[in-house]
Amino acid sequence: MGPPERDGTEQQLTELVTGVLSGNRIHIAKAITLIESGDPLGDLVLSRLRGNLRGVPVIGFAGPPGAGKSTLIGALIGVLRERGKSVAVLAVDPTSPISGGAVLGDRVRLVGKVNQSGIYFRSLASRGATGAIARNIRAMCRVLDAAGFDAVMVETVGAGQSDVEIMGVADLVVIVVPPDYGDSIQAIKAGLLEIGDVYVVSKSDLPNSKLMASVLESLLSGRNRRVRVMTVSSATGENVRELVDLIWSELEAMKESGELDARRTRIHEWEMREVLMERVKSLVESALIEEGHLERARRELASGADPRELGRRLAGEVLKTVQRRLEGQGWDR
Amino acid sequence: MGPPERDGTEQQLTELVTGVLSGNRIHIAKAITLIESGDPLGDLVLSRLRGNLRGVPVIGFAGPPGAGKSTLIGALIGVLRERGKSVAVLAVDPTSPISGGAVLGDRVRLVGKVNQSGIYFRSLASRGATGAIARNIRAMCRVLDAAGFDAVMVETVGAGQSDVEIMGVADLVVIVVPPDYGDSIQAIKAGLLEIGDVYVVSKSDLPNSKLMASVLESLLSGRNRRVRVMTVSSATGENVRELVDLIWSELEAMKESGELDARRTRIHEWEMREVLMERVKSLVESALIEEGHLERARRELASGADPRELGRRLAGEVLKTVQRRLEGQGWDR
Repeated sequence: MGPPERDGTEQQLTELVTGVLSGNRIHIAKAITLIESGDPLGDLVLSRLRGNLRGVPVIGFAGPPGAGKSTLIGALIGVLRERGKSVAVLAVDPTSPISGGAVLGDRVRLVGKVNQSGIYFRSLASRGATGAIARNIRAMCRVLDAAGFDAVMVETVGAGQSDVEIMGVADLVVIVVPPDYGDSIQAIKAGLLEIGDVYVVSKSDLPNSKLMASVLESLLSGRNRRVRVMTVSSATGENVRELVDLIWSELEAMKESGELDARRTRIHEWEMREVLMERVKSLVESALIEEGHLERARRELASGADPRELGRRLAGEVLKTVQRRLEGQGWDR
Repeated sequence: MGPPERDGTEQQLTELVTGVLSGNRIHIAKAITLIESGDPLGDLVLSRLRGNLRGVPVIGFAGPPGAGKSTLIGALIGVLRERGKSVAVLAVDPTSPISGGAVLGDRVRLVGKVNQSGIYFRSLASRGATGAIARNIRAMCRVLDAAGFDAVMVETVGAGQSDVEIMGVADLVVIVVPPDYGDSIQAIKAGLLEIGDVYVVSKSDLPNSKLMASVLESLLSGRNRRVRVMTVSSATGENVRELVDLIWSELEAMKESGELDARRTRIHEWEMREVLMERVKSLVESALIEEGHLERARRELASGADPRELGRRLAGEVLKTVQRRLEGQGWDR
């Protein structure tokens, strides 16, 4: 890695950091892209921004596709804007229709400096990068924190593996489920039951939402702390204000009880472990390819070697190569 | 690891392997559980079964929750049973309602030896184990191969990250989408467009399925090889037989063209890499905890250290510990 080159990189860095701190949309986007793509420059930007972090809340939204997460986020942003709050949204749901125009329509202009519109949107590709999502999203939230937003919202599918991830990212988790009984119960049982702080039954203008809310309440009754369930309609605006109030009062209560600090410590530890493992993985991947381990392994597979036995044996050999490299002996011994 | 203990383990192993080879449902289940939980005994079982593998087809089914994958699999099994074929199903979709009774109802008795019913079902927990799914499922398929089934079907959600996984597991991938236009297009765009060999629009008794099929065909027209689209109704049985025929003729064509061998080589290489990385990960995790690295890191985080910088630094230190252990110097030097 080494220190950044003096001229080009240093100037680029300073410009990026200054841009982010002044809320420049293009520089924010660039910083996030650097982090998303794993560019070492992203980490340099993050280091520079450290002194400007205020610890703004990161609110996670999870729920099955079609639950109405994006529309709900749009409605919440409307209320927050009325109250003078600026909001950034990171959408990790690959099926999310979130984009500047799709959710907010013509209500705001998403150009120029973000402090003019008070809103920033970003869709993130989630495919093929499971662990990477969570690790990097918390870092992106720091960019948005330093850029001056009052809150960051993270939208994710939260089904299967990714439910763990939203807990590794968000200070508070809102689970959104549609009023459709069967689908919601399936989604909830598939891992959403343990991770939410607030549960929202969306589309309360449609039939069954009240029924769904009471089913949810009874499903959640086994949890050892009080969990709130609310029916909300993004279409009619029913309970949208109340949901904003609920989220902020829960965050306030978490801050006072020390729960917020405890969660952030867990999130940081998780992030540290993820970065550690990612570094190990990339060292192993390089060693695998550059020292011919993979070529030899392919030949062995082709002649019928067992992939599992081969994988276990190769682990020790590849780690030896990694160690040699770390000790500065280089790749050629 | 070392050789298995002579008495207990050896006897247990022999019993398990003999049980699997004779199609004993309890022994098959036990072998799969060993693999699922990462028990080293599972690998010993796999080694013993190697000589009995016939290379039966592994057919993957992916699609959004609610697409009707489980019901379709049930219908396909009905046809295959009529034709005297035995089938094993591994369901990785956490929301799958698949279980012996749920799909096949009273048509078959799922007790005793599997060669009496010709069917074996297994639900697999997928939460919190992304990479582990694919790596281990292919190994489980080998158990089912050795147990004498004519085909293995793997059901998965296939959204987000997991779409890559079904390709790392299955010889042939069937994508199932519901006739509902919007949801299907979203799911397809979220990563199902590149991975299918056969696309099925389910519930062809409902309106819109023909329309959906032609939309799919135009979406798929950019692919460089011919991909088949079919509308199927598990309820009325429409095209169920035709789908079975299509799957088997595609498999046959893949075998003749060499594509099947090529895919299996890729699957094996992927499995080897996954096992390698899993071994590295577990060595790193042990080193992290057992040598006090984690405790020290926690203290640093509590006093405000940057989680990412800490993670990168720790990687080198932890790898040094791992190396010391691998060289047999033990944990205490």
